[in-house]
Amino acid sequence: MHMSECLHKDSIGPVSFYDKKLTLGKDGFVLESGKSLPEVSVRYETYGTLNEDKSNAIWVCSPLTADAHVAGWYKPDDKHVGWWDSLIGSGKAVDTDKYFVVCSNVLGGCKGTTGPASIDPRTGMPYGSTFPTITIGDMVHAQKQLADELGIRHFYCVIGGSMGGFQAMKWAIFYPELIDRVILIATSPGFSAQALGFEIVGRDAITQDPNYNNGDYYDKQIPAAGLANARKLAHITYLSAKGMEARFTRNDIRIEHPEKFYSGSSLETYLDHQGTKFVERFDANSYLHIAHATDTFDLATEYGSLENAFKNVKATFLNVNLSTDWLFPPDQSRQITEALLNDGKVVTSLELDTQFGHDGFLIECGALGMAVSRFLGGHLGEVKTTGTPAFHSHKDISIIDSMIPAGARILDLGAGDGLLIDTLWNKKKVTGVGVEKNFTNILGCIERDVPVIEKKLSLKTLESFADNSFDYAVFNRTLPEVRNQRLMLREIMRIAKHAIITFPNFGSWEMRWALCYHGRMPKSPEFPYEWYETPNIHCFTYRDFVRLTEAEHLEIEKIISLNEHGLSKVLTKLGLVNLGTERVVAMVKKA
Amino acid sequence: MHMSECLHKDSIGPVSFYDKKLTLGKDGFVLESGKSLPEVSVRYETYGTLNEDKSNAIWVCSPLTADAHVAGWYKPDDKHVGWWDSLIGSGKAVDTDKYFVVCSNVLGGCKGTTGPASIDPRTGMPYGSTFPTITIGDMVHAQKQLADELGIRHFYCVIGGSMGGFQAMKWAIFYPELIDRVILIATSPGFSAQALGFEIVGRDAITQDPNYNNGDYYDKQIPAAGLANARKLAHITYLSAKGMEARFTRNDIRIEHPEKFYSGSSLETYLDHQGTKFVERFDANSYLHIAHATDTFDLATEYGSLENAFKNVKATFLNVNLSTDWLFPPDQSRQITEALLNDGKVVTSLELDTQFGHDGFLIECGALGMAVSRFLGGHLGEVKTTGTPAFHSHKDISIIDSMIPAGARILDLGAGDGLLIDTLWNKKKVTGVGVEKNFTNILGCIERDVPVIEKKLSLKTLESFADNSFDYAVFNRTLPEVRNQRLMLREIMRIAKHAIITFPNFGSWEMRWALCYHGRMPKSPEFPYEWYETPNIHCFTYRDFVRLTEAEHLEIEKIISLNEHGLSKVLTKLGLVNLGTERVVAMVKKA
Repeated sequence: MHMSECLHKDSIGPVSFYDKKLTLGKDGFVLESGKSLPEVSVRYETYGTLNEDKSNAIWVCSPLTADAHVAGWYKPDDKHVGWWDSLIGSGKAVDTDKYFVVCSNVLGGCKGTTGPASIDPRTGMPYGSTFPTITIGDMVHAQKQLADELGIRHFYCVIGGSMGGFQAMKWAIFYPELIDRVILIATSPGFSAQALGFEIVGRDAITQDPNYNNGDYYDKQIPAAGLANARKLAHITYLSAKGMEARFTRNDIRIEHPEKFYSGSSLETYLDHQGTKFVERFDANSYLHIAHATDTFDLATEYGSLENAFKNVKATFLNVNLSTDWLFPPDQSRQITEALLNDGKVVTSLELDTQFGHDGFLIECGALGMAVSRFLGGHLGEVKTTGTPAFHSHKDISIIDSMIPAGARILDLGAGDGLLIDTLWNKKKVTGVGVEKNFTNILGCIERDVPVIEKKLSLKTLESFADNSFDYAVFNRTLPEVRNQRLMLREIMRIAKHAIITFPNFGSWEMRWALCYHGRMPKSPEFPYEWYETPNIHCFTYRDFVRLTEAEHLEIEKIISLNEHGLSKVLTKLGLVNLGTERVVAMVKKA
Repeated sequence: MHMSECLHKDSIGPVSFYDKKLTLGKDGFVLESGKSLPEVSVRYETYGTLNEDKSNAIWVCSPLTADAHVAGWYKPDDKHVGWWDSLIGSGKAVDTDKYFVVCSNVLGGCKGTTGPASIDPRTGMPYGSTFPTITIGDMVHAQKQLADELGIRHFYCVIGGSMGGFQAMKWAIFYPELIDRVILIATSPGFSAQALGFEIVGRDAITQDPNYNNGDYYDKQIPAAGLANARKLAHITYLSAKGMEARFTRNDIRIEHPEKFYSGSSLETYLDHQGTKFVERFDANSYLHIAHATDTFDLATEYGSLENAFKNVKATFLNVNLSTDWLFPPDQSRQITEALLNDGKVVTSLELDTQFGHDGFLIECGALGMAVSRFLGGHLGEVKTTGTPAFHSHKDISIIDSMIPAGARILDLGAGDGLLIDTLWNKKKVTGVGVEKNFTNILGCIERDVPVIEKKLSLKTLESFADNSFDYAVFNRTLPEVRNQRLMLREIMRIAKHAIITFPNFGSWEMRWALCYHGRMPKSPEFPYEWYETPNIHCFTYRDFVRLTEAEHLEIEKIISLNEHGLSKVLTKLGLVNLGTERVVAMVKKA
């Protein structure tokens, strides 16, 4: 993966690593397999200061081939800063002025923590082929013991991207009481079959290398060719197809080339470089063991279902997927969000647009940083929410408020910057989750601590919500924006017991007058857009809506006519409700 | 890849292969590299009968690891029929009752045609490391000479999927005068950088195998492990992520497994099987040489641009991509269509929905067969076009006809079953291409020989069309179906000199009356849909349209009011055009 190559001057500065030999009982460090390691040493780094009540610790879980060096630099002439230096530091998203940040090298690694290349104290020789199978759970257990020994008993947040996300989920599952927040980035509940396929091929490339020798090569030639080829393959999966297309160029090589089977692409030297660099910095046995831990990580299989895996977690989650990531594809990442939602947990989910594929989690620190900062209670970067001021206005909110009882759980479809849920939470402990498509609005939601799912409104959006998982679904002015209102109403009545729908009435006298008199598509305060660019793709009248509820056998529990114009008020008083209503607020349920 | 496993009884029946030693001059078979082979023998199969005027030959180009055995079986107890048996045979899409079908094994292969494992007559030993670099062009040259020697001088069609598509494109470029039709399936103008990356890794897996010995292994152990691993990797790229997810299952293997680093997925044994099977049937040197020919195939680099590559082709093209194919992704396949269109060539392009990824081209023979059959002039399978009868009615067509001069080139946006272009072609040699999203409508277009591009109407759809590449763009009732009419008009005026737009008038008296009197979203013969499911997402009035053309500085060259109702006719006569017009036909151009 690309190391973030920020300037040293923006970095937290000089840092050190520490090695801690864990204090173990006579059974040593017992692994999930039942086997044990006689001793475990963990390399880690810390930045910032643990505060007096020990409430400001943030634990960073490292991805597959990274290390404990997540921020800062060791020597002024270091070519690289830590691998997440762009996210972690003074005044950055994970602000080391406020938080005590810890990152350790994983168990099984080759960057200071006990792994296959470490000396087995029982033999005085490297473990090699005798190193036992390890799991993501084992990695987390080693980290937990390190935390204990560092005096950290509570975690403001646990953060992990990629395989780091696997660990972060295990943290939340193992120690639900200790963790306030979890941030997952570009991760999934386990590898897809496709990703696993690449893992298998990469693994075989190493184990088929004649120098591999079942893992006992430390006093001989290392399996460099196999390891390099495994890395080349893995590296391709870290990039996006689009990003690769833009980056590499082709030569016309219809004439014979000195290097046999040379493809004629600049990708050749790039991949060679990636392979060579990796062989210099990583041990093949560590790669095999850590990769195997990720291969066998599969929460749904291990716990029976993903919902089951998360049923006891207590943390609030931020789950971020990357648009062009196909190693941990958005759809898989969303499964985490969906399971948490179906468990009634608190989760916010973002869809980060990037062309960098999986590597984006190390590169896209701008948007990601703003979201992470807000999730941690900070305010990094300027955010202008774009919600039209009229929307989720105080009037809307007070009417919707009047319909929703204290303690209800709501789904706000088109949540804007989260004002509705925020207000109802503060007033009467209404919980809920928003669905919103606009990223800056979503940052607004995060800033308000309103859980929000980044999605466009569509039938597909709602598929993943469990039956009756909400008391109220709210469409505040968003129902005209979907493709099929009839199917949408059906879907909503599957998910929520009640629906509260506000919509501008295309049947008001103003609309009728504008169309009849001017012969043009009407505009009004309720319909402020030009016809060719309105988000309202299916407008409808008060009467249309009532007829549709009848056809769908829904009971209108309450229906409120809103109007501002004097004539509208008069018409409504005269009983000409469809004419007099500028906007409708209706609450419906299954009849 | 999966071999099609149709029942023998549907198959063409027993077939034979033939070997032909090409007649070569003293320079032997000269390759594009300048090197030559002293002799070339080609294995091929033929089905059906070459007719008297030799006009019914269909040439099938084979993909990477296939052979000449494309249909039928050799012995009644054969486990498999030919690799495209589902598409080729008596009464099938490529109907051997009508056509004389030929398929040969490619140059460099190991299935009967001269390749690295063949005996070099100069040494009496297999070529091995001395086999020269070959190209896709070389493969086609060998096929052309075979065709010459078989007495075939004209090709009703050349068909190729995957690498077969590479050859088919070269056929069309090398021999433009000889080929009537080209069918390309799941192919591209060259590998994407991502696909090339996998090729590089697979190649290295073979060449790093210690048994490879620079290709001289025929009297020793073969590089089986490397070849198997290359195949495993390639096989993953033939499947879709979704298809793999559905197919393979996971075991919970947190306890140590006898096989070290076993991933716990049924994918392991599947991939092992694919690798082993491949090693039994394919030669590593052939794989390397043929793969290298595909790696270095890149029409845009070779000819300067894709448009340049195709500028002299004369054939009519059918270009089919597969929705989940990520080895030859739809976007890349579309580049072929776009280049052909920008060259003014005749091309129909299909987007075939499949969950089988690239392998779909061997599996999805239902829909594909119906399209191929029609493109070849057949009628395989029943097709019911879904176009509402009112659309592209004879009245519409006669009005549009009156606006378009003979010989013009038109783009029909929402082409239905192609009636408009078909009619105008027959009447006055108007050429053009349709854009249509419905597959059965598209089959209707193909049956009428109307070139059509399968796409939804959107701004993005039109991006790829070159400036001023059409005389007329026609939106027959489809403009209200797009998201932003203003931007759409701009985009259309970039592509075409004139636009002809027909749309239902939301400002007609009927609409106004329905909204005003009933207070409901209006329905009429021109607006036949319920408000919640109408495809018209931005309705507009006659006047709205005129205002928009003014704002966009377009000149309305002609505008026609259509009406059926008596009152509409009266109102129009009274000069109340917006009230009296039920439907508008307008022709506009840049002012």
